[in-house]
Amino acid sequence: MMQAADLSILILGGGTIGRGWAVAFGAAGAEVQVLDPDPACADHLAGDWARALPVLTGMGAVGESPALPRHVPGLDAVSAPPDFVQEALPERLELKRAVFTALETRIASDTPIASSTSGLACAEMQAGMAHPERLVIGHPCNPPWLMPVVELLGGAATCPAAMDRAEAIYHCLGKTVIRVQGERPGHLVNRLQAALWREAVHLATEGAASLAEIDRAITEGLGPRWAAIGPSAIFHLAGGSGGMAKFLDDLGGEVDRWWLSLGTPRLDATCRAALLADIANDPDPWNIDALVARRDGLVPAVLALTKRHREPNPDGEYQRNGGKPQ
Amino acid sequence: MMQAADLSILILGGGTIGRGWAVAFGAAGAEVQVLDPDPACADHLAGDWARALPVLTGMGAVGESPALPRHVPGLDAVSAPPDFVQEALPERLELKRAVFTALETRIASDTPIASSTSGLACAEMQAGMAHPERLVIGHPCNPPWLMPVVELLGGAATCPAAMDRAEAIYHCLGKTVIRVQGERPGHLVNRLQAALWREAVHLATEGAASLAEIDRAITEGLGPRWAAIGPSAIFHLAGGSGGMAKFLDDLGGEVDRWWLSLGTPRLDATCRAALLADIANDPDPWNIDALVARRDGLVPAVLALTKRHREPNPDGEYQRNGGKPQ
Repeated sequence: MMQAADLSILILGGGTIGRGWAVAFGAAGAEVQVLDPDPACADHLAGDWARALPVLTGMGAVGESPALPRHVPGLDAVSAPPDFVQEALPERLELKRAVFTALETRIASDTPIASSTSGLACAEMQAGMAHPERLVIGHPCNPPWLMPVVELLGGAATCPAAMDRAEAIYHCLGKTVIRVQGERPGHLVNRLQAALWREAVHLATEGAASLAEIDRAITEGLGPRWAAIGPSAIFHLAGGSGGMAKFLDDLGGEVDRWWLSLGTPRLDATCRAALLADIANDPDPWNIDALVARRDGLVPAVLALTKRHREPNPDGEYQRNGGKPQ
Repeated sequence: MMQAADLSILILGGGTIGRGWAVAFGAAGAEVQVLDPDPACADHLAGDWARALPVLTGMGAVGESPALPRHVPGLDAVSAPPDFVQEALPERLELKRAVFTALETRIASDTPIASSTSGLACAEMQAGMAHPERLVIGHPCNPPWLMPVVELLGGAATCPAAMDRAEAIYHCLGKTVIRVQGERPGHLVNRLQAALWREAVHLATEGAASLAEIDRAITEGLGPRWAAIGPSAIFHLAGGSGGMAKFLDDLGGEVDRWWLSLGTPRLDATCRAALLADIANDPDPWNIDALVARRDGLVPAVLALTKRHREPNPDGEYQRNGGKPQ
C-alpha cells in the first residue's frame, strides 16, 4: 500500500489553500515543496505548520514522521522530482496555463497534476498542455489541512490512471474522496452549501427568523445529525423497515410540496443590504473572534469524534479513510 | 426561574412524537401524563424510557428527579391539572379539533396548548376553540427526547403570553427554541432539510455521484462543520475581517451563479424510481441496522460535544440552553 512518507509532492502556489495542502501532505509524512515567488511564503508555512500540527496530533491524524514543507521560490529550485502536483494558484486561467507549460518540461510525463480550482473547467486548463490526460481537479474543503472531503473530477481528456493515482494519494492523507461525474458550477459540495444557504437567505429576508437564529437551528439540530448520518439516510430511516421506498410513499408528496415552495432569492443589492442589516441588528452572534474560536475548537473535535465512530466497522472503512484503528 | 420539576404536563397522543415529548419532560423532572386510548401505550412508554434515559444521562441532560411518564386512557383519568399541554395526535384536523374541544372544558382558560403539527395551519386548528389565543405550534425535531431544536410559531389569534409561556417551558427542558414568524410549508427546519436534499437528489439523478457518496460528502465534511458553525457564519468568516460584507463583495456573484444552476427535480415516479435504483445499486451504505446504530451512537455524542463547547462562554448561554455548567 502506498505510504505518504514515500511521496514527493509539489504544491503550486503558497496562498491559503496551497499552504493548507502542504500542511496536510507534510503532516502525513510526505516530502513537500511549495512553489511561490513570494519570499514570505516560508514564514507563512512555518506559522501554519506550528498552528496546525497540535490540532492534527490531537485528532490522531499525524503520521510517524511529519515533515515541514519547504518553500521554493521558482521551478529551478525544485529539487526532488514530484510524484504528484497539487495546483493552488490564483483562479486565473492564463496564470495556471503558463505554470503548467513551464512545469511539464521538468516532470515525468505521467505525473498527475491536480487543480484545486473551484470555478475553472478542466478542458480550459488542459488546452495547451503537452499531457492534458494527467490533469484532474482535486477540490478540497477549506481548510485543506483539516477538512477530509476532496472532490475528484476529470475532464474529457483526463485519463483514468491519473484519476486513480490522485485518489490513491489523497487516501494516503486519510482524505474522503468523492468522485464527481461531469463538471458543473460549484462541483458538488459548494452546490449543497449553496442550496441550504439559499433557503436560509430566503427565510431571513422574508422575516421568518434572523440569519443567526437560522444558524442556531442548524448548529443545534440539523448539523449534529448531518455529522452522523446524511440527509438521504435520514429519510431512509424515516421509512422504518420499509426504508426510502416507504418514506417516498408516505412523505414524498409532502417533501415535493416543500420543494415547490422553496424560495429563489438572488444576491442583488436589495438582498445584500437586507442580510447586512440582519447582522447589524443583532451583532453578538457575529463576533468574528468568537466564531473562529468555536470553529477551530469544535470542528476538529467533531471530525475526530465522527471518525472514531466510523472506524470500528470492519467493512474496509479503515483503508478507505487511510486511518489505522486506534 | 421556572423548574421542570414544578410542572405538570399533559401530552395528547402516545405515538412516537408524543412519547418522545413525554420522555423529554419526564427526564427533566416534570409530572407527565400521556393521553392515548391505546392500552399498549403504557408499555411503549416504559420501553422508550428505558432506552432513552441512559442516553440522556450520558449527555448530562437528566434532571435531579426524573419521573416516568404516566399513561392515561381518557380525559376522565387525567388527575393533575396540566400547566402545559403538548399535542401530538395524528395529523387529522378534525381529530385535533375534537380533542381540543373536550379538553378546554377541563383545564384553566390560560393553559397553553402547543401543537406538534408539521403540516396544519394554526388558524385551522384554532377555529372552534373556546380560547384560540392559547394555541401555539411547538414543532420538535425528531426524536423530541433527543434533538434540542423546537420551532415555535403562533397564528394571528395566538396571544404573546402563550408564546412566552411555551418558550419558557421548552427552555426548562434545555431546548433550543427558534421563534418562526409566519406560517409556511415545513416551517423552517424542514424547509432547510428539503432545500439541501433537493440538490442532493438533483446531483444523484444527474449522475454526479450516488446518494450514498453525497451523504458521505455531508457526514465527513459539511455536517461536522455545520455542527460547529452555521452556513451564514461560515460565509461571514470567509470574508475575513471584513465579514459578510466582504464575502458578498468577493464571492456573492459566484454564489448567485451557483443558485441559478441549482436543480429543481420533482419527486415524480421517474425520480422516485431513480432514487430507489441508486440505493439498490449499492446497498451496503443503506443497511438500516448499521445506520440506526450510527445515528443512536453518534448523534447524542455530537450533541453533547457541541453543547459542552457552547456552555463555557459567559453570555447567558447557560440559561438559554437550560443547562448547568459541568
